[in-house]
Amino acid sequence: MAKVVNISQCFEKFNDTYSPKIIGELNGQYVLVVKCEEDKVPWHTHENEDEMFYVIEGILDIFEKRKKITLHAGEFYIVYRGTEHRVVPQGHVKLVLFEPTEISHTGSVKTEITKSEFERLDV
Amino acid sequence: MAKVVNISQCFEKFNDTYSPKIIGELNGQYVLVVKCEEDKVPWHTHENEDEMFYVIEGILDIFEKRKKITLHAGEFYIVYRGTEHRVVPQGHVKLVLFEPTEISHTGSVKTEITKSEFERLDV
Repeated sequence: MAKVVNISQCFEKFNDTYSPKIIGELNGQYVLVVKCEEDKVPWHTHENEDEMFYVIEGILDIFEKRKKITLHAGEFYIVYRGTEHRVVPQGHVKLVLFEPTEISHTGSVKTEITKSEFERLDV
Repeated sequence: MAKVVNISQCFEKFNDTYSPKIIGELNGQYVLVVKCEEDKVPWHTHENEDEMFYVIEGILDIFEKRKKITLHAGEFYIVYRGTEHRVVPQGHVKLVLFEPTEISHTGSVKTEITKSEFERLDV
């Protein structure tokens, strides 16, 4: 998978939301792209994994129990392991995620958006 | 270090080249920003670490022994562990790196650009 990956072009290759696609893998971490729309992510916690949210387009609110973070294009934020959180897009959002390959993306909480594994995008 | 980080703004905070600055840390990996100019990076290999190069501005050539990769803004490439490589910027380049915290950035090769540790940028 040693390829040049154009991040913006990755988003032209799929339309489903809340379905992270693998575009890179290194050191036990995935690089993922995901489209988000509507308030669908439940409160959840990753006990052993830090998770990085990097906004490519749009505005993303991240809620921790005592904190609201708002991310614009070109900004990232790391939710550290053990921190209960949820994300709410303002409109349509294109995101890059960095997280360990063994992560469950909604933690131990299962909802309609929960995926048991991520699809690999043909980059 | 749970902060909103604007990647472009990070590059306004320093001017030295080939001196990666830490702007994030997660799961044993650093998120680094670095400015590159001129052909200064020796051929080197990371035996146990994959390294991701993500171009924010400019054009970067990455050479592996039998391959030349050219990255433009918005593109990334992963050099896998054990792969001898060097990078050559075309003019001035702003880069994001993702790599394990224990990496030596020029492998076992020491030159004028080699740093024993990375500085943390006040983001």
